[in-house]
Amino acid sequence: MYDVAIIGTGCAGLSAGIYTARYGLKTIVFGEMPGGLITTTHIVENYPGLGSISGPEMGDKFLDHAKMVGVEIQYTKVKDVKKTTNGFLLTTHKGETESKTLILATGSEHRKLNARGEEKLANRGVSYCATCDGAFYKNKVTAIIGGGDSAAKEALMLADICEKVYLIYRKAEIHPEPINKQRILANSKIEVLTETEVEEFVGENKLEKMIFKNDKGELKVDGAFIAIGQLPESKIARDLGANLNQKGEIVIDKDSKTNIPGLYAAGDVTNSDFNQAIISAAEGCYAARSAFEFISGESVSY
Amino acid sequence: MYDVAIIGTGCAGLSAGIYTARYGLKTIVFGEMPGGLITTTHIVENYPGLGSISGPEMGDKFLDHAKMVGVEIQYTKVKDVKKTTNGFLLTTHKGETESKTLILATGSEHRKLNARGEEKLANRGVSYCATCDGAFYKNKVTAIIGGGDSAAKEALMLADICEKVYLIYRKAEIHPEPINKQRILANSKIEVLTETEVEEFVGENKLEKMIFKNDKGELKVDGAFIAIGQLPESKIARDLGANLNQKGEIVIDKDSKTNIPGLYAAGDVTNSDFNQAIISAAEGCYAARSAFEFISGESVSY
Repeated sequence: MYDVAIIGTGCAGLSAGIYTARYGLKTIVFGEMPGGLITTTHIVENYPGLGSISGPEMGDKFLDHAKMVGVEIQYTKVKDVKKTTNGFLLTTHKGETESKTLILATGSEHRKLNARGEEKLANRGVSYCATCDGAFYKNKVTAIIGGGDSAAKEALMLADICEKVYLIYRKAEIHPEPINKQRILANSKIEVLTETEVEEFVGENKLEKMIFKNDKGELKVDGAFIAIGQLPESKIARDLGANLNQKGEIVIDKDSKTNIPGLYAAGDVTNSDFNQAIISAAEGCYAARSAFEFISGESVSY
Repeated sequence: MYDVAIIGTGCAGLSAGIYTARYGLKTIVFGEMPGGLITTTHIVENYPGLGSISGPEMGDKFLDHAKMVGVEIQYTKVKDVKKTTNGFLLTTHKGETESKTLILATGSEHRKLNARGEEKLANRGVSYCATCDGAFYKNKVTAIIGGGDSAAKEALMLADICEKVYLIYRKAEIHPEPINKQRILANSKIEVLTETEVEEFVGENKLEKMIFKNDKGELKVDGAFIAIGQLPESKIARDLGANLNQKGEIVIDKDSKTNIPGLYAAGDVTNSDFNQAIISAAEGCYAARSAFEFISGESVSY
């Protein structure tokens, strides 16, 4: 019987584990991706204290830290979770594990465009996060692909940094919130190309241009940001009866509690609207404190 | 004219600066203590990703990171801040600085007992934070000094880690919340010593024992935790008309906004009830995003 089971070996899950282990709780972390989504990022420069670091190195630092404080990690898929009278019963192909509390830090996937060259040039000019990577394109030419509010906001943010930003959308009209649409149209650095769909990202070692479908030509860019949504990995939460929002994200309060006693969530799988490693880590620490308070019956505030 | 002025060069202020600079905002940080309060901690093992690191080294990492992304830092006391039509006017003894927005990350001080030996043995057995340092006293004997709810909660937490915990209070009755008082009295590892006041902390290179006033004898302990409150540095916020809670902490929402447009706060000076470096850093990043949204009129959520 564990005190805390955590699903997810990214920044959120490992931060939660570091805190629960330090609270003296018997902790196990299950994951399939050592270090989590951050390890797919080329360079990370916005986790305060780590300076400029590669994604894989950053993942490694979190793993080392978790191991240092005695967190047990099992790299195996959690196939099923059931609520029991004592807590939660997790099933993996290695067997069953019972825990008094469960922290879901299962993350999310950036929705892919599935264009040719996209995978090859990911982190070599093709990115899925303007806040993360926009600063690398100061005074350069970039494109945002997408027509929703996120795409519009990322375009506006990039326009503050870049020389020129193309907003590329496959339908006839972009559909951000009205205020953001006005801002897009009023911004002289942003050019909107509608009814335009990316066929291919082209480049040897880094992105050089995009080729559009239906003979719409091509466009030279230094960076392309795909902003067509996130897919939260919230199936386990849904099956347990946790409240999800309309995006499928797990609804948590400021203490990372879900609506189910003993069940917590942290990181990109949650409904907090700032998907950054530092925020995921903080949510993980709040989840750990909540798990500790649940198990001990004590409250910790300072 | 700066876009963002930040007061405080600890984890919260520097994290805010790292984010605002990366948003392309002209940022200046004022501080008196390079690296902030964390630099007074001997060893930090609970900032996810940094493993085991000394407080001064950790402060240094944050400073290097901030400088790397182009944050300007001035080590000088901000004597006065006035609200202007364009933002905020800061006065230091070096002159005046105007900024569109202001982020207060001024931190707090642990209230001192002012006993003999306290300063000398700080971080050598004498500590002000059980969550930060409790894990260093696994199966050892510790004491908490204080009679309020924080002291009680820290004692309960330490009892999960330590062999024995003394709760030492100068008055006749401790006064935590009733549920915590019951738990203290029911916990066989915790012994309450009332009407007992520390005269001196004794030890050569690390704490060995405490001597009590009024011939109440002495006590051998491995660690002593002083939990008699925090003093938030919120005078500037008060003078600007920001809402404070009854502890004098600046009231912020989840986006680190105060009640005054363009004024944000982050870290130990705020009313969030989890004073940890990782939480301060996250609050700083939220404050940075809020400042960016205020200046640009854009909203950033992902």
